[in-house]
Amino acid sequence: MSGRVQQFREFREKMNQRILDQKHLPINRFFTLDTKAYEDGALDAMTKEFAGLSASMVLRCDDCISYHVVRCKELGATDEQLFEIFNVSLVAGGSIVIPHLRRAVELLDELNASDATS
Amino acid sequence: MSGRVQQFREFREKMNQRILDQKHLPINRFFTLDTKAYEDGALDAMTKEFAGLSASMVLRCDDCISYHVVRCKELGATDEQLFEIFNVSLVAGGSIVIPHLRRAVELLDELNASDATS
Amino acid sequence: MSGRVQQFREFREKMNQRILDQKHLPINRFFTLDTKAYEDGALDAMTKEFAGLSASMVLRCDDCISYHVVRCKELGATDEQLFEIFNVSLVAGGSIVIPHLRRAVELLDELNASDATS
Amino acid sequence: MSGRVQQFREFREKMNQRILDQKHLPINRFFTLDTKAYEDGALDAMTKEFAGLSASMVLRCDDCISYHVVRCKELGATDEQLFEIFNVSLVAGGSIVIPHLRRAVELLDELNASDATS
Amino acid sequence: MSGRVQQFREFREKMNQRILDQKHLPINRFFTLDTKAYEDGALDAMTKEFAGLSASMVLRCDDCISYHVVRCKELGATDEQLFEIFNVSLVAGGSIVIPHLRRAVELLDELNASDATS
Amino acid sequence: MSGRVQQFREFREKMNQRILDQKHLPINRFFTLDTKAYEDGALDAMTKEFAGLSASMVLRCDDCISYHVVRCKELGATDEQLFEIFNVSLVAGGSIVIPHLRRAVELLDELNASDATS
Repeated sequence: MSGRVQQFREFREKMNQRILDQKHLPINRFFTLDTKAYEDGALDAMTKEFAGLSASMVLRCDDCISYHVVRCKELGATDEQLFEIFNVSLVAGGSIVIPHLRRAVELLDELNASDATS
Repeated sequence: MSGRVQQFREFREKMNQRILDQKHLPINRFFTLDTKAYEDGALDAMTKEFAGLSASMVLRCDDCISYHVVRCKELGATDEQLFEIFNVSLVAGGSIVIPHLRRAVELLDELNASDATS
Repeated sequence: MSGRVQQFREFREKMNQRILDQKHLPINRFFTLDTKAYEDGALDAMTKEFAGLSASMVLRCDDCISYHVVRCKELGATDEQLFEIFNVSLVAGGSIVIPHLRRAVELLDELNASDATS
Repeated sequence: MSGRVQQFREFREKMNQRILDQKHLPINRFFTLDTKAYEDGALDAMTKEFAGLSASMVLRCDDCISYHVVRCKELGATDEQLFEIFNVSLVAGGSIVIPHLRRAVELLDELNASDATS
Repeated sequence: MSGRVQQFREFREKMNQRILDQKHLPINRFFTLDTKAYEDGALDAMTKEFAGLSASMVLRCDDCISYHVVRCKELGATDEQLFEIFNVSLVAGGSIVIPHLRRAVELLDELNASDATS
Repeated sequence: MSGRVQQFREFREKMNQRILDQKHLPINRFFTLDTKAYEDGALDAMTKEFAGLSASMVLRCDDCISYHVVRCKELGATDEQLFEIFNVSLVAGGSIVIPHLRRAVELLDELNASDATS
């Protein structure tokens, strides 16, 4: 796995654990709701990840975008499908989404290169 | 069709036509890109409408939400599926999404009542 | 109570009940977290309502602002205190907050007039 | 002048006066800074109004958009110039700007009709 | 004091001074309004800092969050109180606040470690 | 040219090319609309860049701000004119714009220093 993805995951996991260890019950419940929102249900997990990705792109949250791109890839999304969501997000959110799109595509290329060498 | 949905559609169509009639070519091209973003492609139209709906909800645009709810229903989305997208949007965008969720559910109920009597 | 406040509360309560009746468990849990976030704890309810009010103002959500203004008044906040929060929100969020400030002050005046005649 | 523009101006002026009468000095100073930001300086007032209009459109504040459209027209902006700013705002802010664009064009048409009959 | 906090403060102070030295009077007045908004008044400084912190979190401005966390600590806020504001912000602003929450908690831990060794 | 500006341009150009090479036609058309929005027309390019800069500042997109500051300088904008747009953006968007203003002024100083030594 690429260094950037690895670094993002490690900081994310370390701080999530730190926050959960604070035992602020409502915050911990929020984290659970956040995780469960993307599980299979009346819609499959992939469709919900696509929805989460477009929400993250128009809100321009790089960490959220990274997380959902990784999850979409893990669930088997193709580059063509991801670019469709990138396009929906770009049209809905405007050119201010472009800097985040650049970083999302850079991450996607890293993930693909990592898959190819693993 | 309910009065509210009808009124929204009429204003939308009247003003879209007015804007297109201005013949500002780049704006007209943007409108075309917006329409085409939700057509079948590497992802089916419904998945893209769900992504557009979640983007609209977290950006809290009532007119956009109304448009995508109507389109999702036209494409055959069930209430259970729509509530899954509502949930993703609520968790991603927070409680400030709730006022828009109220209006989205009110619209959904109007659309369902309209279907039942048509 | 003034007509506007009454109308807002009735729609809010009707649609909240409608949404809870859908029995989408994660959404219902989110509503519970939202309610509980403003209860007395390590900070008193009023301080948390002030924080919720400033969050609502900079995010420019009229319904959220109305709700928190009503709650602040119920908890005994003075106009002078509310204008302090209005000022923090205005400076943090900029002049785009002003249209929402106008409606917040109109609501505050209605609440005060209503108190005076009850 | 059209009813909608008149109604907007009256509420705006009434509530601005109400807020200033509260004599919360920092808020009053903020209002002064807001007014002065659009006066002739190193840039002429029209250029600054165009910048204020695009800021208002991408932040999707209808009242702010209305105010700046009225001001641009008072300063002599043509429809062609305003549609250029609408286009910049649409591309920068995305399709979620469209509902606000519809209302901005409706207002512009009202202002033009009002000019023609005055 | 930790390196990260120190670096943030130094850049902040250097650039604030640079901006003030430009002698653009309205910008300098805005900076004064921003500073004064958080001073003791009808509400104490801490309550206003909490309101500024929640506004900063839902608007997802890391530098603003850092500034208000530092100020809250200086004024004597406990971790329990700060997590209450984190929770209000998380519920109001949604899971897109989480990346900023991670960095806020990391900063808080640095500030606490710094206090313990000073 | 300074290292920071150079690095930003190189990543921007590399990733723009990568995205265009994906040959997702609607995304490529969007990029064209984005470029063309700022060309001379009913308004001159500079006025449109100022509008794009204020939009970027209130939406708090550092890469967009950098791009428009560079373009404004290339078109001959003076520091006094840029500070006028900074002020409009600061008043419209609030103190959360300040961290982006700091970085914009740092970039402006780098561009000016680079001009002086070239």
